[in-house]
Amino acid sequence: MKVDGRAILVAVQAFQFTVTGRDGAARRGELRTPHGVIQTPAFMPVGTRGAVKAVTHRDVADLGAEIILGNTYHLYLKPGDGLIARAGGLHRFIGWERPILTDSSGYQIFSLADRRRISDRGAEFRSHLDGSLHLLTPESVADIQLQLGSDIAMVLDECIATPAPEEATRVAMQRSVEWARRARQRFLQVRADPGAFGVAVTNPGQAQFGIIQGGTHPGLRSESVEATRAIGFEAYAIGGLSVGEPPDVMYDVVAHTAPQLPEDAPRYLMGSGMPDDLFECVARGIDLFDCVLPTRNARNGQLLTRHGPLAIKNAQYAEDLRPPDPDCGCYTCRHFSRAYLRHLFNSGEMSAATLNSIHNLYFYLDTMRQIREAIVFGSFDQLRLEFHQTFSRRPQH
Amino acid sequence: MKVDGRAILVAVQAFQFTVTGRDGAARRGELRTPHGVIQTPAFMPVGTRGAVKAVTHRDVADLGAEIILGNTYHLYLKPGDGLIARAGGLHRFIGWERPILTDSSGYQIFSLADRRRISDRGAEFRSHLDGSLHLLTPESVADIQLQLGSDIAMVLDECIATPAPEEATRVAMQRSVEWARRARQRFLQVRADPGAFGVAVTNPGQAQFGIIQGGTHPGLRSESVEATRAIGFEAYAIGGLSVGEPPDVMYDVVAHTAPQLPEDAPRYLMGSGMPDDLFECVARGIDLFDCVLPTRNARNGQLLTRHGPLAIKNAQYAEDLRPPDPDCGCYTCRHFSRAYLRHLFNSGEMSAATLNSIHNLYFYLDTMRQIREAIVFGSFDQLRLEFHQTFSRRPQH
Repeated sequence: MKVDGRAILVAVQAFQFTVTGRDGAARRGELRTPHGVIQTPAFMPVGTRGAVKAVTHRDVADLGAEIILGNTYHLYLKPGDGLIARAGGLHRFIGWERPILTDSSGYQIFSLADRRRISDRGAEFRSHLDGSLHLLTPESVADIQLQLGSDIAMVLDECIATPAPEEATRVAMQRSVEWARRARQRFLQVRADPGAFGVAVTNPGQAQFGIIQGGTHPGLRSESVEATRAIGFEAYAIGGLSVGEPPDVMYDVVAHTAPQLPEDAPRYLMGSGMPDDLFECVARGIDLFDCVLPTRNARNGQLLTRHGPLAIKNAQYAEDLRPPDPDCGCYTCRHFSRAYLRHLFNSGEMSAATLNSIHNLYFYLDTMRQIREAIVFGSFDQLRLEFHQTFSRRPQH
Repeated sequence: MKVDGRAILVAVQAFQFTVTGRDGAARRGELRTPHGVIQTPAFMPVGTRGAVKAVTHRDVADLGAEIILGNTYHLYLKPGDGLIARAGGLHRFIGWERPILTDSSGYQIFSLADRRRISDRGAEFRSHLDGSLHLLTPESVADIQLQLGSDIAMVLDECIATPAPEEATRVAMQRSVEWARRARQRFLQVRADPGAFGVAVTNPGQAQFGIIQGGTHPGLRSESVEATRAIGFEAYAIGGLSVGEPPDVMYDVVAHTAPQLPEDAPRYLMGSGMPDDLFECVARGIDLFDCVLPTRNARNGQLLTRHGPLAIKNAQYAEDLRPPDPDCGCYTCRHFSRAYLRHLFNSGEMSAATLNSIHNLYFYLDTMRQIREAIVFGSFDQLRLEFHQTFSRRPQH
């Protein structure tokens, strides 16, 4: 695919972040991408294989999502970035016109456990689909995402379990930095001359984010920030969290790391989290979130509300004609009762997953809307306090 | 539940059928029910357990469906008509404000094969859910539907496999007539004095349809019509078809039976059929259809188009960037390619079922819209001819 230099210049300028308001360390911003503007802080629904599970793009857009996440590992394996590039890129292939972020595959490879082997070169693994052997390197992951044409690409990183000893964490962090350096170099080289690399660059305005690692060790996090910033990315993510550590540990790492990241770039906390995590991490300067929790829990029959989770299959809801959350404005809560949703879930109807996902996504997206508004009005701490007063991670109904 | 007499009178009058146009034996009509008007000929999407599979009510309404079908057998077993009545009836329980028809359970009981025993009293069967023993009688099926509060209730009938010997068919047909007589008596008695029967009548304007049986034997069909009309129902259905007989046999039975049914009542062909069946049976005077085919085939990856079915999982569609049907105006065809739909289906994404169902339902509902329009303009035979020229039941892509 040929792209002329001027088109690249225009498109590259399409990525721009502006902080439009502050309330303590919380930031209100606007993130411009080639496929549109994202109001931050923002939550990004996860569409692993190019579709948010159990809902249509129409539902996702109606819910107000301004960006979704796709998974590089899964899309590389099936249907393949080559096919997607020939279709004109991921946006065109999946029929979603708004921004897309593609993750790095680092977490998916980490999850393969004994099916993968990490070396300085990259990650060798066996596909979860058919057992075939693959090698993903910092360079190939950059190429794949250039072919996918997401608006935001992530560098390949090495995730490790936490807690981990400082030395093992340091090795993985240093490898992630080295991979980030190679990924950035590749990204800039390919974008400058796609033909020389045989890569179809389907979105010349793609931005690439670096990822901060370092586990729960503040010193390593600082080292990772310094080294990754030195490489120079459009923006930075905090990785290696939400992998089992207690919330307070995560909050401490975020509080330590976020202020060291550039003021004029969005900060993305990868894979978090519970609804209360959104408040606590916005309070520590995070702008972007993604998490499978709202859609995965929906499929398991758990509805999230400001009063805590509601397990819809429970017998106590058999005759409960109230909506899941009487204060919620989502399609599901405006039309359906707990009794009906329980009936659908217990009958194995697919629409149970759809209606529960619509509610949970709305809950996350509406919470972010409230957070954005509160930051503008300087009332974020009050909203945060009110949220904690009613929300519990344990069922409360 | 108490209902005053005047309310019943008003509501009963809510059921009204007007033939507004004719083209040969094909009829264009308007069917008024307590929950709204249905333009006929109409196709009714099947929502067995109070939900059309894999789509939301919002999707179904957007597609233009004016009535959906619920299943008495399934709703009786779970969540139970008592619970639904306490919720205010099926419309309120499921959050669907337009008309609903509930079927008789006759076909479901027939499908239970060796798990059921039919006697003059009714049908004794073991639940497909938990093996519990149940008895459904003409009376109890009428009561259940009065509690569900559908706009159209069907009488319990006895379905048998076709082809069947005339004598066996006669026995089943005569039993269906006797059951129809008992069902009608019960329906009128309960509606006049629900309190005396302990039945919560949630829709005083419910209509009850009789069902014509008699297999593939014209003489028995005529006997069934005469006896069932003598009982007197708001309208009549043709049952016992689409159970495996060749299309021409079904068309002959419809051609023989439909003209014997009242001119001023809608005629409902139960459980049919393939897209070409819609044309052939409208041509023989049918006004209402239902069939699980569009939604069931969608879940199996079969998209129906005017050129025939398309099996989306096939390798030939891997890089096919055309919509399933380039001439189709549905959400799926306007936004997604065969290659993407194949990817979703082969990845096991639930939204594959949703997008395929939206297309197939649109195809059925849009076909009926075209049929209605053609009847008004006197061009139904031309539309029918054009349809047969392009449509095939075998894959054509």
